[in-house]
Amino acid sequence: MSSNFGKNVHLSIFGQSHGTMIGAVIDGLPVGEEIDLDALQRFMERRAPGRDEYATARREADRIEIVSGLYQGKTCGAPLCLLIANADSRSADYRQLRDIPRPAHADYTAQLRYQHYNDPRCGGHFSGRLTAPLTAAGAICLQLLERREISVGAHLQSIGTEQDAVLADDALTPQLLRSLAGQKFPTWDKEAGERMQRLIRDAAADGDSVGGVIELIALGVPAGLGSPMFDGVENRLAAALFAVPAVKGIEFGSGFAAAAMRGSEHNDPFYLDGAQIATKTNHHGGVLGGITSGMPLIVRAAVKPTPSIGRPQLTLDMESMRPTQLEIKGRHDPCIVQRALPCMEAVTGLVLLDLLLDGEYQRLY
Amino acid sequence: MSSNFGKNVHLSIFGQSHGTMIGAVIDGLPVGEEIDLDALQRFMERRAPGRDEYATARREADRIEIVSGLYQGKTCGAPLCLLIANADSRSADYRQLRDIPRPAHADYTAQLRYQHYNDPRCGGHFSGRLTAPLTAAGAICLQLLERREISVGAHLQSIGTEQDAVLADDALTPQLLRSLAGQKFPTWDKEAGERMQRLIRDAAADGDSVGGVIELIALGVPAGLGSPMFDGVENRLAAALFAVPAVKGIEFGSGFAAAAMRGSEHNDPFYLDGAQIATKTNHHGGVLGGITSGMPLIVRAAVKPTPSIGRPQLTLDMESMRPTQLEIKGRHDPCIVQRALPCMEAVTGLVLLDLLLDGEYQRLY
Amino acid sequence: MSSNFGKNVHLSIFGQSHGTMIGAVIDGLPVGEEIDLDALQRFMERRAPGRDEYATARREADRIEIVSGLYQGKTCGAPLCLLIANADSRSADYRQLRDIPRPAHADYTAQLRYQHYNDPRCGGHFSGRLTAPLTAAGAICLQLLERREISVGAHLQSIGTEQDAVLADDALTPQLLRSLAGQKFPTWDKEAGERMQRLIRDAAADGDSVGGVIELIALGVPAGLGSPMFDGVENRLAAALFAVPAVKGIEFGSGFAAAAMRGSEHNDPFYLDGAQIATKTNHHGGVLGGITSGMPLIVRAAVKPTPSIGRPQLTLDMESMRPTQLEIKGRHDPCIVQRALPCMEAVTGLVLLDLLLDGEYQRLY
Amino acid sequence: MSSNFGKNVHLSIFGQSHGTMIGAVIDGLPVGEEIDLDALQRFMERRAPGRDEYATARREADRIEIVSGLYQGKTCGAPLCLLIANADSRSADYRQLRDIPRPAHADYTAQLRYQHYNDPRCGGHFSGRLTAPLTAAGAICLQLLERREISVGAHLQSIGTEQDAVLADDALTPQLLRSLAGQKFPTWDKEAGERMQRLIRDAAADGDSVGGVIELIALGVPAGLGSPMFDGVENRLAAALFAVPAVKGIEFGSGFAAAAMRGSEHNDPFYLDGAQIATKTNHHGGVLGGITSGMPLIVRAAVKPTPSIGRPQLTLDMESMRPTQLEIKGRHDPCIVQRALPCMEAVTGLVLLDLLLDGEYQRLY
Repeated sequence: MSSNFGKNVHLSIFGQSHGTMIGAVIDGLPVGEEIDLDALQRFMERRAPGRDEYATARREADRIEIVSGLYQGKTCGAPLCLLIANADSRSADYRQLRDIPRPAHADYTAQLRYQHYNDPRCGGHFSGRLTAPLTAAGAICLQLLERREISVGAHLQSIGTEQDAVLADDALTPQLLRSLAGQKFPTWDKEAGERMQRLIRDAAADGDSVGGVIELIALGVPAGLGSPMFDGVENRLAAALFAVPAVKGIEFGSGFAAAAMRGSEHNDPFYLDGAQIATKTNHHGGVLGGITSGMPLIVRAAVKPTPSIGRPQLTLDMESMRPTQLEIKGRHDPCIVQRALPCMEAVTGLVLLDLLLDGEYQRLY
Repeated sequence: MSSNFGKNVHLSIFGQSHGTMIGAVIDGLPVGEEIDLDALQRFMERRAPGRDEYATARREADRIEIVSGLYQGKTCGAPLCLLIANADSRSADYRQLRDIPRPAHADYTAQLRYQHYNDPRCGGHFSGRLTAPLTAAGAICLQLLERREISVGAHLQSIGTEQDAVLADDALTPQLLRSLAGQKFPTWDKEAGERMQRLIRDAAADGDSVGGVIELIALGVPAGLGSPMFDGVENRLAAALFAVPAVKGIEFGSGFAAAAMRGSEHNDPFYLDGAQIATKTNHHGGVLGGITSGMPLIVRAAVKPTPSIGRPQLTLDMESMRPTQLEIKGRHDPCIVQRALPCMEAVTGLVLLDLLLDGEYQRLY
Repeated sequence: MSSNFGKNVHLSIFGQSHGTMIGAVIDGLPVGEEIDLDALQRFMERRAPGRDEYATARREADRIEIVSGLYQGKTCGAPLCLLIANADSRSADYRQLRDIPRPAHADYTAQLRYQHYNDPRCGGHFSGRLTAPLTAAGAICLQLLERREISVGAHLQSIGTEQDAVLADDALTPQLLRSLAGQKFPTWDKEAGERMQRLIRDAAADGDSVGGVIELIALGVPAGLGSPMFDGVENRLAAALFAVPAVKGIEFGSGFAAAAMRGSEHNDPFYLDGAQIATKTNHHGGVLGGITSGMPLIVRAAVKPTPSIGRPQLTLDMESMRPTQLEIKGRHDPCIVQRALPCMEAVTGLVLLDLLLDGEYQRLY
Repeated sequence: MSSNFGKNVHLSIFGQSHGTMIGAVIDGLPVGEEIDLDALQRFMERRAPGRDEYATARREADRIEIVSGLYQGKTCGAPLCLLIANADSRSADYRQLRDIPRPAHADYTAQLRYQHYNDPRCGGHFSGRLTAPLTAAGAICLQLLERREISVGAHLQSIGTEQDAVLADDALTPQLLRSLAGQKFPTWDKEAGERMQRLIRDAAADGDSVGGVIELIALGVPAGLGSPMFDGVENRLAAALFAVPAVKGIEFGSGFAAAAMRGSEHNDPFYLDGAQIATKTNHHGGVLGGITSGMPLIVRAAVKPTPSIGRPQLTLDMESMRPTQLEIKGRHDPCIVQRALPCMEAVTGLVLLDLLLDGEYQRLY
């Protein structure tokens, strides 16, 4: 069940980094929905490698082919299957990856888990390459949400030690989220973005890499979605977002900062905002007791620095059981945070659509 | 499905804060396992209110009665049901809770979700009281794990702005974890613990509350558990830990701090530690690609400050739709982090046992 | 997961035949629903032993206690837990059951499955006694369905070789189903019922037992429920109905008889019945392609003869590994079909409510 | 979730009868398993149309392409995706299918369920065409089972009113099952098979169709698989087998015939068969209390007559809401039972592999 997710909208991801094809099956999409393939392809462009000078040299067209689930251009109730061909499919010698595990990669644990039968070619099913079908599947969900005026966006809250500006809660608008999506390097503060890019260039120059924090925002999410205990918005979002490789932490609202606050500071007072019950601050990040409050949904994800770096690293040769120095050849992303960002948006879209479809919300006739 | 969890070991939690009984059903426990009821009861004491001067005045014996699932004192394959009577079951007037939502509580969202039919008495099913059966269920799992030399422990990494000491990775031993379990206020550094308690007393004196961060540690977890994508150790643990009320963030290994590191610093070099493949550092927190590496499993959870505070708070009277000032009567925990800690250990136990039972790990004969 | 069922309405059953308590947890019930406890208790009376001269001597009050899930008498969103005390809870010597498996019972397979740790007292969790909480849980669902004018009823289509009359499809009405529920021995044809009872008496006089076929009918089920492939009405109903001990076959509409028909005979012509699209015959039993058609839902279940009989039986003493003759002491139901009947109705109610709550049926706003 | 199945081995089916591709994703297969593609293709030949004079004129190569899940020819832990191109993909005018529902087909219910957005081309996702990927997925599972000496086979117990011979329980051998697989028209009794084929020819000559009963047999299934209540072998097999279109009933062992037996006749006596505990008869069909007994697993499925017949049929024109006479053009299978047979074997293989992988069977170390 490792590559399956969702209760109402059910996703199956398949493929390996260097297999012939990768893809996804989405079962349970609402019917009668058009899929805008051009918009989907543009969304894919946002996570594509090679958008800037720092990205990996691998260049995939990532053209989405939908082979089922549509009839006359609309979802028809049948599971939707999308395929992406792997242009760059190699079967070179991977003895090195098999015997010499790269630090901070899944090479070693994958071998344990799959008893040395795992596909070692660039991580196989563990590769970041698999975020392509995940992103595509989620981007389809986002299209359905947008039609219902639910917007999901994200900015780079930090890259390494560089922080983006902090925006006032009430400045958040769907327009602002859309403008983020148009940026190659989405930040509130343009100069902060430039500092971040400089920091990435510096790391690259050192043969090193950096991580960062992505802040996800969803606006227009109806209040009252989710459930207490194990089926809350946080449970379901966290369970899904940890599927994106390199994510090491997830927090909602004030998150870890809340732990250092006093209750009088953290508790968000309810008030009437026009005809709408709202809170004056949003430390709770739009979720109380696992259920959406109608306030902006705020989630942050910590992304670790890219494990593949240019510098020589110490590791173990598992054949000889001797220490060895590993040099990872080729060009690698010194930072994957900006590429993980649209994938995170997409995963958020998948979970929100799944939540919207929970039958329990509808009281029986 | 909100109060259900688990793939192999399946948990159902039921009850309301002021109903007659709360409890849990656990289906799928391995058979032939003795349950040490005394040890279970002692474990429950760790989360019981009233252990110290700061805790809530509500005093429940929390005596666990196991009414099914055992035969001659051992698990027999039938689902185990445990019941806890609510001694302090009131049906006072709860108009106030219904109309005047307490900030940072689920009063408002529960009403939306359950169309005003929810039980408003102290949060009903949303109450921290429901962590009693959750803790009991997980504590049973921990007993099974301990027999297999898997230890789970936790310390208070911070309360408010006070931090515990940082321990060297190689200092972690099962003995040390056991000694933490014996402390009323589990910290590595006794003085830090005293500073934390002072900080809680100060908050209480101000009619206020504080939060904190719990660091969970699991030792002896076999390498190779978990799966990539949606069924990894992080996904399953995060999905479960967010079931504990007041948790706002979860991180693994270096977590959010990893986002500010460079790859050369964060990547943990593999080496041979005796006959065991290990890593020299443990920034990955025992999980790579969703799969355990055999290194200590490190999870941290951010707990927000107790929402119920003594001070008057601004909120909305939803009947009149006018602002109102709310004063929450009675005595309340100014800090629940130390009580949430054993519950988090228990939930971790539940997830680890579930992972251990995954059939996929066993290669077919 | 063995004693769990349901997607939207999730049921957990617990208990053993001679444990202190048996019960069920139902999570996901629609909110604001009154539970009529008197009606529930009356429903339970229908499956109670000792209603007639043939039934087992064991006499249990089967008083249902609901300890959670209600607030002011209505479902409140919290999981509903119901408990039934086992008055007749013995811990006699069960060496015989452990070593000398009763033919057609689960004694032998339970020991294999649970490695001799299973509770052998009258079948433990495998006992027909566990149909009490199952019936109670389903009967609650039936109350909700009845409010929406969905009626479920059943008659004894056969006991042993005696057949009930065949009713014209268009004779089926909710009133008729209700009148069945009032009969101790529900048949269309009273005389057939008397012949069946005579047949049971004859079997009892011979120290033997008989089985039979139950025909379940659901009226008022909305058209369009269910899904193709694995999530159809047949899949979900069959998966649930096989949970009732002694069921050996399930068929829909013409079922096995359909296999001997020609298409021209079996195909039900569509026509307009007033304003309603209907079929002139109902060989399809109300389900086409896994989805309800609006015609009466017709399901039949084959129940094997009660395995416990008075006559001596050949079996194996698993301690000595020698053949032995087993005599089952005490009084036993020579026929359990009439007691299984309300349980089957209840299980049908559970599945239909679960289907009604599928979120997918609602097109998104 | 309609086209998803399985707990440990998880299957997703996708595609429509006249879409570009159909296929399946299988997640959770044991690793290190070779897939014999030639044997797989030969298995597919058994369900292919056009094997005999009666079959549909549609001719598909059904060449299986595995695009993920293998590394160096062996399962590697990544989900396996198999694709089958639809050579015969038409987009003709389907107004007739949309407005004039074919009796006994899902045309009408699919429109209700999917709000007229369903793909009407030859049933879309409801088409028997979708049994191709289902068969392929199950056939892969069967290969794994065969390596563990678990054999699954089936014969045509009846076609219309013609019955196959009854075989003594002890005559069942893996060799016999293999020889069935080699027959175009698998029966125990060759002459019975000829009578069945004559009956099909007669029906075809009348522009009509016939159904039949398939008897599935699994040998070598380890005793002790499955669980009581909702997770038994019967529950899981029935839930899966009803996914095959046209199945209207499922029974185990003596099934519906058991309902007419007396207990003394039906109860299978235990005895020692060499070193193996067995039963002298097999009325229980290899399952007691939801758990395998080690005796041959016997399942029968009733398949209704092919709904598409050459004769004119009465139905409703849903546009004009008037009765109309429908003539289904083209050539159609007058009997699909022999084509459904390998698909049923495959589904049985899928469920048995899933059961084998249940973690609960392994007692923890």
